[in-house]
Parts: sequence; structure tokens; C-alpha cells
Amino acid sequence: LHESIYDVLALPLPERELIARIRSHVSRSGGRPRPHPGPSTSILVGIGDDASVLRFSKDRDFLVTTDFSLEGVHFRRDWHPPESVGHRCLARGLSDIAAMGGDPIAAFLSLALPAKLPQRWVDGFLEGFLSLARRFNVPLAGGDTAESPAGVLADIVVVGSVRHSPTSRKSGEKWGTAVLRSGARSGDRIFVSGQLGGSAAALAVLRSGKRLNPKDFPRHFFPEPRIDVGRALREKRIATSMIDLSDGLSTDVSHLCEQIGFGAEIWQNSIPRATIGKGRQVDLKYALHGGEAYELLFTAAPKTHVPSKIAGVQITEVGQITRGRRIILREASGATAKLEPRGWEHFRS
Amino acid sequence: LHESIYDVLALPLPERELIARIRSHVSRSGGRPRPHPGPSTSILVGIGDDASVLRFSKDRDFLVTTDFSLEGVHFRRDWHPPESVGHRCLARGLSDIAAMGGDPIAAFLSLALPAKLPQRWVDGFLEGFLSLARRFNVPLAGGDTAESPAGVLADIVVVGSVRHSPTSRKSGEKWGTAVLRSGARSGDRIFVSGQLGGSAAALAVLRSGKRLNPKDFPRHFFPEPRIDVGRALREKRIATSMIDLSDGLSTDVSHLCEQIGFGAEIWQNSIPRATIGKGRQVDLKYALHGGEAYELLFTAAPKTHVPSKIAGVQITEVGQITRGRRIILREASGATAKLEPRGWEHFRS
Repeated sequence: LHESIYDVLALPLPERELIARIRSHVSRSGGRPRPHPGPSTSILVGIGDDASVLRFSKDRDFLVTTDFSLEGVHFRRDWHPPESVGHRCLARGLSDIAAMGGDPIAAFLSLALPAKLPQRWVDGFLEGFLSLARRFNVPLAGGDTAESPAGVLADIVVVGSVRHSPTSRKSGEKWGTAVLRSGARSGDRIFVSGQLGGSAAALAVLRSGKRLNPKDFPRHFFPEPRIDVGRALREKRIATSMIDLSDGLSTDVSHLCEQIGFGAEIWQNSIPRATIGKGRQVDLKYALHGGEAYELLFTAAPKTHVPSKIAGVQITEVGQITRGRRIILREASGATAKLEPRGWEHFRS
Repeated sequence: LHESIYDVLALPLPERELIARIRSHVSRSGGRPRPHPGPSTSILVGIGDDASVLRFSKDRDFLVTTDFSLEGVHFRRDWHPPESVGHRCLARGLSDIAAMGGDPIAAFLSLALPAKLPQRWVDGFLEGFLSLARRFNVPLAGGDTAESPAGVLADIVVVGSVRHSPTSRKSGEKWGTAVLRSGARSGDRIFVSGQLGGSAAALAVLRSGKRLNPKDFPRHFFPEPRIDVGRALREKRIATSMIDLSDGLSTDVSHLCEQIGFGAEIWQNSIPRATIGKGRQVDLKYALHGGEAYELLFTAAPKTHVPSKIAGVQITEVGQITRGRRIILREASGATAKLEPRGWEHFRS
């Protein structure tokens, strides 16, 4: 299943390998990021989580995340109205902050525009962007502009913060209270917010050549970042680990398991599928592998009480962290099969 | 003089107008960025300075800057070796932090690569990037990767910090000690670091079709960000305002004057011109309008002692802030002429 918007071309390195290569260069140039000698800031979490975590003061950590939105890769101008492109651009960054349990503080936008882009398009983009920013009280505080050699190119930076609570200090947690991908343990239960597959199903319709009315497919065109859900999961100390579902459930579970060195079992029947059109549930493949859901996947310790709704959003248990490293899908029949990461991955041939 | 690397195409809005439009959208969506209600962070400086300033804790401010490096706009793969592209990518961000008098803390890199880019190119880029990062002790702490629809696309985010000194609190300065563009007053003297025009002169040679040996033109291929100069100017409270010279002296002076509502007089004979080749001084036009110098321009009060060298870099007085709004060039003959901003501006037709 290739749910990337464009057919992905052969590239020298798939994305995961590119990131691994960058990491290896970084480590050759002096090992793990060290605490900075001058100003007392240390990089608690660098490459490899939804956002980086900087310890900037005694009682607060600082989150930074960056995400591209490139025409022809993450959106198409003939499929997505400019308001949707602007909204999705910021939503990608906010969703990463949500996955750390953080509060967004400010956004920075680098925007390169091609020659002869209609001014109306730029205004629509900004309207979509700033309307979401307003609702989350995230000021647009800077960025860069440039001429683009090809298509609209945006890169969003969202800066957020996590205040350390006294309980986190008491329990001696090393990373303060930002919820990392790496906190899950064998036996932890796996949950997701909302319904899955709605965005990918809409994309499949677009790929078939049909136009869609954005209002009928809000989860694709105007996804709501789960800031309140993420914050509650952190503040109430429910989540032991968390990741945002941007690449697809199967791929994001594999990202999480990679970090912890455990495996997982996902229960096919439990996956909450989105409904589109006349209340029809989306096909399983969209819920399992479809990207850009911008929901949260998190784990909780076996005895932790997890409400069925948080901040108005449905929470569903969908599986469990297991010993070993296998990731399996328990199908409706009870049979199990290896769950391959078949969600969005850039650069995949 | 068009010292942009590519001939710039007609775009709906030149860059300055685009930024003004973004600002007007931002202001329609709720006025100036407000202090954030939740976490106690306020945006002290938003769009319009070299970096944004966030007040994150009582005794320190936080700087954020983002800069594109786009193939065909900011560099060309047939002109610039990958090590130079990686170096310049990070140098752009570090130079912005220098212009605030800040210390860089961490870098975040969004990198989109086209299909079939040789792996050697990626390794060279990372080597150039990380070798500069190492020298300034700036860890690469995160970012994003994607497939590029056209050419190599990089966006660099550098985060920095400025510690408030007790003297700054005593004097009741509103913005702490980050040096802003807006602090200059009529009568302040104008200074620049280093020599100007070397990068633009090298670019002119490249445009003429000749290849250059990067080692002979370090200021173009491997510009050194003036972090130590900027920090000293802030710590010793020498600079009343500061901007980095990335667009060209004439244009950057106009940016500065725009912020303060004053004018300026620049003394042609005093401008320190770079030497290239066999000790030949570059043409005046490169020193006056050429972009990507990555030196600092700052102002100091009339009675402030300004050393002729700071952190090993030559400091030269080149003019004065004046009443009114005119920006003039005092020529060698003593005659004055209006100084038009003719440096790099994206999008200019």
C-alpha cells in the first residue's frame, strides 16, 4: 500500500536510512549531543522522537519540532485548497508537540513561493494557517521567505514547553515530564485516540481522480491536532510512551518498538475505524497503514486507569507491548500474522 | 545590480511585501503576539529581526531563527561543493544568532533530497554542516527529512540563548540584552565587522562561467559566522542595534533604518573592501550591495569606546545614524547621493 500522495521515486537512501546516516555522522562528530558548556542548556532528546527536548531552565523543558509541507509530496494544489494546505502545515507541527504532552508556544514558518503564484492562494494559505494558530493561541513569531525553484515549499517549526511537576521531581524521572517514545515496557497496553483511516481513505478517492468537498472529509483536509489529549495524558501521568500517528499505525508502532527494543501485538478487531460518506467504515488497510491520521498512539502501565474519553476524544485500547521484538496483528479469526510497516515512508521505491 | 544567484523571476509579491502581508494577516488575527496564557512565555520580538526572542525564564531569553538554503536560489550544485552547501546552510542560521549577540544552543535541519542524488553528495553536505557545528559546539538535535520534488531543499533552524545580566535588569531594559535592530538612535555611529564584498565578487566570477577553487574564496564558500564578535558587543554593552549583513550593506542599512525611523549616512571611503586574487580590492559595488557577507553591522552611542578589533576581527566605522529618513552615501569627492537598497532581495523582478 502506497499512501504517499505522489508515487515515490527511487532515492539513494530511504528516509529511515538517511536519518540513521545523519545520526552516524553526528555521533562521529563527537558522540551524543553534550550539555552545552556556556549557557546551561542540554539536549535531553535529540534526533528520533516526535520533537527534541531541551532543558532550558530548572523547572521547564523546551520542545522543538520541524516538518516539511512540500507541494507534490505532502499536498497537491489541484487536490487541496490553500486553506487546507496552511492548516495541515501547522497541524503537522502541533501534532508533534501533542505527542510529547507539550504546550505549543510559538510557530515559525519558512515559506518559498514559485513565480506567478496567485496572490489569492497565498492569502488562503495564511488564512488556514493563522485560523488554526489562533484557536491554539500559537503566535506566528518568525520564519523565512524565499523564491521557490519549484512549487510551494513550507517548513513549519513549532516550539513548545513542558513544565516539570513536583511529582516528577519527587519520582526522580530523568526526562522531566515530556512523554517520550522510549518509555514503554513489556506488558504495557496500547491505545489510540480518535478513529483511524479517514484521511487515507479520502486520499485514495483523490488518487482515483475524484474531487472531494473538504467539508465532508475534515480529518484529511483540516485535521485537529490532539494537544489537549496529549497534555492530559502527561499531566495525569497516564502515558508511559507516545507517538503521533502521521505515517500509519503499522509504521508508527514499528517506530515506537524500535526505540524500546520490545515487540507489540495489535488487535485487528479493536482498531477504531473512521466512517466516511454515508456512515460506511473505511477499509481496514486505511486504518492499519494509512498516513496522516494525526491521532495519538500511547502506552499505559497495566494497572493505570485509562478513561474511554479524554478531552472529548474517544480513547481505544488496540493492543499490548510484548517481550521479544516481533510486531504481530491478531486477526478477527484469532490467528496472528506478522504486521509489516506498510504506512507512509518517504523515499520508498 | 542583481547579485542573487539565479535571475529572479517575476513573483506576485516581492519579499518585503510578502512579509508585510504575513504581518498584516497576523495582526488581523489578534494583534501583536500576546504573552501565552498557559506557560509563562512571551514573544518579545516576532517577525522582523534577525531572530525571534522568546522570554522563557526570568533570567534568560531564547532565540529562534530559520533560513532556507534552496538549490537554484541560494546555491548551485555545479558551483558549490557539497561541503560548502552544508557549511553555508548552518552559517546562515548562526549569523542570525550572532546578530542578536546570542549563544547558539542547537540546530535543527529539515532536508529534502531529490531522487538519484549521489550518496557522496549527502555525505559531503553533512560533513560541511557538522564540521562547522562542531567548531561552535552546536549539536544537530533534530529536524525532518523528505523526498524533494526538485533539487536539494534545506531549512535550518538555530536556537540560541541570551542570559540577562544584572546590569540589564538594573537599567530597566525592556528586552533584556538581546541586541535588536530597533535600538539605534540619531547620532549613533555605524560599524561593520571584517571586510565586505568578497563573497559577492566570487559570485560574479562564478556567474561569468569560471570555476573557483573554494580555498581561494573562503568568505564565499565557507563564511565564518561572527558569534564571538556579536557576543562581545552585547556583553560589553557596546552595540545599540545590530543586523547581520546577508542581503548587502545598502539593503541591510535600509532594513535597520526602517525599524528605527531614522536615516543614515554611509562614508564610501571608509567601507572596508575585501581583497581577492593577488591582493586586489573588490569593486565598490560588491562591498556596497553584494550579499552573503555574513559580517555584522552595528551601531554604538557617540561616546562609547569601540575597539578596532573584537575577537580577532577588524571593526570599522563606516557612517552614522541621522535624523530624518534619508539614507545617503558620502562619496570620495565629498558629494552625497541617495543610497538605494540594491542588494539581494528575493522575488525582485
